[in-house]
Amino acid sequence: MSPRTTGQVHIIGAGLLGTSIGLALRQQNVDVSIADASPANESLAIDFAAGRKLEAKDHVSLVVVCVPPDVTAKTVIQALKDFPSAVISDVASVKSTVLTELQASDADRTRYVGSHPMAGREKGGTLAGRADLFVGRPWVIAIEEDTVSDAAQAVEQLALDLGSTPIRMSAQEHDHAVALISHTPQLISSLLAAQLASAEDKDLSLSGQGLRDTTRIAASDSRLWLQILSSNSEELLPVLKAFGKDLEQVIEALEHVGTSGSLSKLGKVLEAGNLGISRLPGKHGSTNTSYAQVVVMIDDKPGELARLLTEIGAAGLNVEDLNLDHASGAQVGLVELSVLPAIEEKLVSTLRTNGWKLAG
Amino acid sequence: MSPRTTGQVHIIGAGLLGTSIGLALRQQNVDVSIADASPANESLAIDFAAGRKLEAKDHVSLVVVCVPPDVTAKTVIQALKDFPSAVISDVASVKSTVLTELQASDADRTRYVGSHPMAGREKGGTLAGRADLFVGRPWVIAIEEDTVSDAAQAVEQLALDLGSTPIRMSAQEHDHAVALISHTPQLISSLLAAQLASAEDKDLSLSGQGLRDTTRIAASDSRLWLQILSSNSEELLPVLKAFGKDLEQVIEALEHVGTSGSLSKLGKVLEAGNLGISRLPGKHGSTNTSYAQVVVMIDDKPGELARLLTEIGAAGLNVEDLNLDHASGAQVGLVELSVLPAIEEKLVSTLRTNGWKLAG
Repeated sequence: MSPRTTGQVHIIGAGLLGTSIGLALRQQNVDVSIADASPANESLAIDFAAGRKLEAKDHVSLVVVCVPPDVTAKTVIQALKDFPSAVISDVASVKSTVLTELQASDADRTRYVGSHPMAGREKGGTLAGRADLFVGRPWVIAIEEDTVSDAAQAVEQLALDLGSTPIRMSAQEHDHAVALISHTPQLISSLLAAQLASAEDKDLSLSGQGLRDTTRIAASDSRLWLQILSSNSEELLPVLKAFGKDLEQVIEALEHVGTSGSLSKLGKVLEAGNLGISRLPGKHGSTNTSYAQVVVMIDDKPGELARLLTEIGAAGLNVEDLNLDHASGAQVGLVELSVLPAIEEKLVSTLRTNGWKLAG
Repeated sequence: MSPRTTGQVHIIGAGLLGTSIGLALRQQNVDVSIADASPANESLAIDFAAGRKLEAKDHVSLVVVCVPPDVTAKTVIQALKDFPSAVISDVASVKSTVLTELQASDADRTRYVGSHPMAGREKGGTLAGRADLFVGRPWVIAIEEDTVSDAAQAVEQLALDLGSTPIRMSAQEHDHAVALISHTPQLISSLLAAQLASAEDKDLSLSGQGLRDTTRIAASDSRLWLQILSSNSEELLPVLKAFGKDLEQVIEALEHVGTSGSLSKLGKVLEAGNLGISRLPGKHGSTNTSYAQVVVMIDDKPGELARLLTEIGAAGLNVEDLNLDHASGAQVGLVELSVLPAIEEKLVSTLRTNGWKLAG
């Protein structure tokens, strides 16, 4: 597989993202140099095979700035000067602040295209780097009205070489989206985990997977997130305030349990939660709500699944997806059929008529 | 393996928990009968091999009430009358409300011991039942001052037969603990997912694992959770209010980004989140904070790990846990050593002196 990216790529910043980009490009034999403000980190990344040392005679065609958010703009401006014929990109989690600083400088912005790979780990640092970090993840390419097409394409090629899906949007659109789908969950997870800080061991001994999942990202680097959250405060605040308003109404409802109608707001929030999660992109790349699920219980013997599918086909009904599950301890299999909502009713009645057992 | 539970177990309510208990006991050849208010559910559970139909001549020794929370107390009271020589337990998520209703009734409470298996799935219903649902999970046995020891033991034996760890605490202690570690995460996850309900598809297209994990449990049955949350409002409210107060301070901080000191509260919440998650019970059954981690980079060739461990041993240092990770794309292995914090410094200096490469 030959990479789309040609020429030398120089990475500035050998943390999780910089090291991962280097590892992934080196696997495809792209010429990669890597630098870090810390000489120890730089030689660690080179030992780690994420790239070689930058040399004076090098001709760099693409620079990727992977430094902390608060020094990203400054580093991009310096890179535009140091590498006068290269395209410069960065991977900072907030895009408008970098752009604003660049616009206020005298740097040649035509060679800059901001980007943001939607990938990460709770662990940071050079040794947390992984070549497969970006596979299957969205990678935002921040496109403004004056973005030069060739520069944008160079960054898009990089994203494709790393296995990501490049998505074009403006810096402002990006910051609006991540406030909702990344920064709010991060902050809420931290707030939730913060309530555990002073809890008694006895209480924590009952912890289950629900608590672990909801608080997992609260283990992330708090200094990094302080920078990210504060630099996107404008987009973040409306989401947090809407959350806070809903929380207040839930508290109000719980304070008046027993009063007629007091629980309707709580019920509405729980139902809105059901709806919200159903809107997350599903495995088809569309939203989960596109399909209705019908669960059929079948005997665990040869030919039963085939018989089921033959009967569904004979009724002219199309199954979009199928999942067969053998329940632990049970002597039957469960077939989860995903169909277009429009044919759900006909499928259910056909199966019932034919004597199949459906989930309650 | 012969089960601790002897005699017939009767399960009332063929939902997720009732069916799962039946499947697990049937695997161990315990005589199980199962009943449900819905005849369709009852025959589904019987077809699913979760138990047989209850017969008039049966001698039931243990009844497990697995019906929705709002009808649990009523069903327990009825079971105490219907099965005059059986121990009666239930699996409702809130224990004080059941106890209070029982205390107000004329039922013979000496044969009742409430319980709560800390296990579940987002999916409910008969066909979601799994024999292994309870394996490795805590199972609270609610013990009051007047609890009869034999009755408590019968329920504890059941928990052990199902692979759970029985934990004794009072109903009030249980409700206090689950408000923090189960009910608050559930409600916060729903509130977070609720913010997605009206989001634009474009924004949701960037969703990653962080959002998926923090909102996963928001897919749970909203009617069931409405009952659970409202019946534990007394214990839940203080936690929600503390969360709300922290959220308000974060909003205040973000509204004044740039003002000196405004971000310290945000930083404190993020750090408290780091601390909170570190207190979750770890794989050693103790808290993660007990150990310090030192990460060593080793060449991916035979004998390197042995050489490392030999040198650590020669220095008289004890390693509590070791995790070897081969990073995708890298030509080295990462050895994560867990040691008591007291020896971390000596380990680091020993390894540095001997020429090993440590993570920054």
